Amino acid sequence: MAVSVTAALLIIGDEILTGRTKDKNIGYVAKYLTGIGIDLREVRIVPDVEAEIVAAVNALRQRYTYLFTTGGIGPTHDDITADSMAKAFGVGIGHDPRAVAMLQERYQPGELNEARMRMARIPDGADLIENPISKAPGFRIGNVFVMAGVPAIMQVMLDSIAPTLETGAKMISRLIEAEGIPEGHYAEGLAAIAAADERVSIGSYPSFSANGFRNQIVVRGKDAAAVEAAAEAVIQLLARLKGDRNPL
Amino acid sequence: MAVSVTAALLIIGDEILTGRTKDKNIGYVAKYLTGIGIDLREVRIVPDVEAEIVAAVNALRQRYTYLFTTGGIGPTHDDITADSMAKAFGVGIGHDPRAVAMLQERYQPGELNEARMRMARIPDGADLIENPISKAPGFRIGNVFVMAGVPAIMQVMLDSIAPTLETGAKMISRLIEAEGIPEGHYAEGLAAIAAADERVSIGSYPSFSANGFRNQIVVRGKDAAAVEAAAEAVIQLLARLKGDRNPL
Repeated sequence: MAVSVTAALLIIGDEILTGRTKDKNIGYVAKYLTGIGIDLREVRIVPDVEAEIVAAVNALRQRYTYLFTTGGIGPTHDDITADSMAKAFGVGIGHDPRAVAMLQERYQPGELNEARMRMARIPDGADLIENPISKAPGFRIGNVFVMAGVPAIMQVMLDSIAPTLETGAKMISRLIEAEGIPEGHYAEGLAAIAAADERVSIGSYPSFSANGFRNQIVVRGKDAAAVEAAAEAVIQLLARLKGDRNPL
Repeated sequence: MAVSVTAALLIIGDEILTGRTKDKNIGYVAKYLTGIGIDLREVRIVPDVEAEIVAAVNALRQRYTYLFTTGGIGPTHDDITADSMAKAFGVGIGHDPRAVAMLQERYQPGELNEARMRMARIPDGADLIENPISKAPGFRIGNVFVMAGVPAIMQVMLDSIAPTLETGAKMISRLIEAEGIPEGHYAEGLAAIAAADERVSIGSYPSFSANGFRNQIVVRGKDAAAVEAAAEAVIQLLARLKGDRNPL
């Protein structure tokens, strides 16, 4: 039985919900975690409102092996992630000497004003996540990893977190092009293949472009032989169905 | 007092959580709803698992004016949104004659097999949302709008839904470039401006590129005069601070 390590991702920020900023972190984190053997099971996006952040953190951290968050750790008044995290865990928060030292690498003594010192506010008991780009650290508290929202910084933080994570069996996937065969033709056969082996899950993904519909089938699972056998069954199914050209 | 109409968005699909497909609907829906005067307050992404979909639907539909969903309404076994929605509302589900008629516009009699007929399964009491591209309809049940996951289809469905929605006062926003002034320098003044008028919310958004950090400040609100006054205060604040060049 393959071990399953699970995760949720919480994106914090009004700017995503108003459409001002297009999120670039969800797809990156999803692919990254899948690649190292962690199953991303849920994503939420919430506004810069403490009660919303606290509720989401507490719902998600209790349900999954890990919770990753992005956003809200800068120096301005709308950066309330650290305080919300302390509240979610019921712990104190203050200027962390290690975080202050990191900021001192970047700012001259007179420059480290009260607003910038906000970036050194870390909940009690948390470990820091280094930020080689702009120094202000993220942190880990319990099973929650708090990262920056700026994609370049989030990505280096994730790289430094990854070696510390427990990982499960990696998801293996096989992509099969339906090559013009409509979903409605292979749906019944595909359902039978999916139902025959609970170690695999099969998805059918239509996309639409100027050239019309393109259907792709993805067979996923953690048992290589089972994925291979199901993929082979899908390929044989499609070979039998070739000829019908009505899309979707 | 401006009326507030709120919404949540639920993205249904394993393919987003594994990173196979990059979501293109969140940013589009966020911008669209903001533009017509509906506040998007929360987004969730869940896998193709009935219990997860039902739980998310029931949590979100009770909390916001509207819930929009994307994904899972095609003909294959992994398309379980309609059945999950019936379960969430505790109503029956069957082949809807109006939906069957729509599919008959597209498929010849012999082509409308059992799998394709799945796309006509609609929860009892729902209204249909037309799909001019591939005919298979979405639907509205209560305050929930169920749309396709394929962006081009989701977008035309949203266009047809929009005129039926109650909308509130539109969010007005003013974007101000910080032009090289670091967040840490304007954070204190910005917090004071934000705290002075509860009708406005102010966000500070650093982004990072080959040219270094770029900070943008956005003043948002539904009262035009209040937004204008706060934006003017921000511009004056930045003018006073010009000169300090240490980014972030």
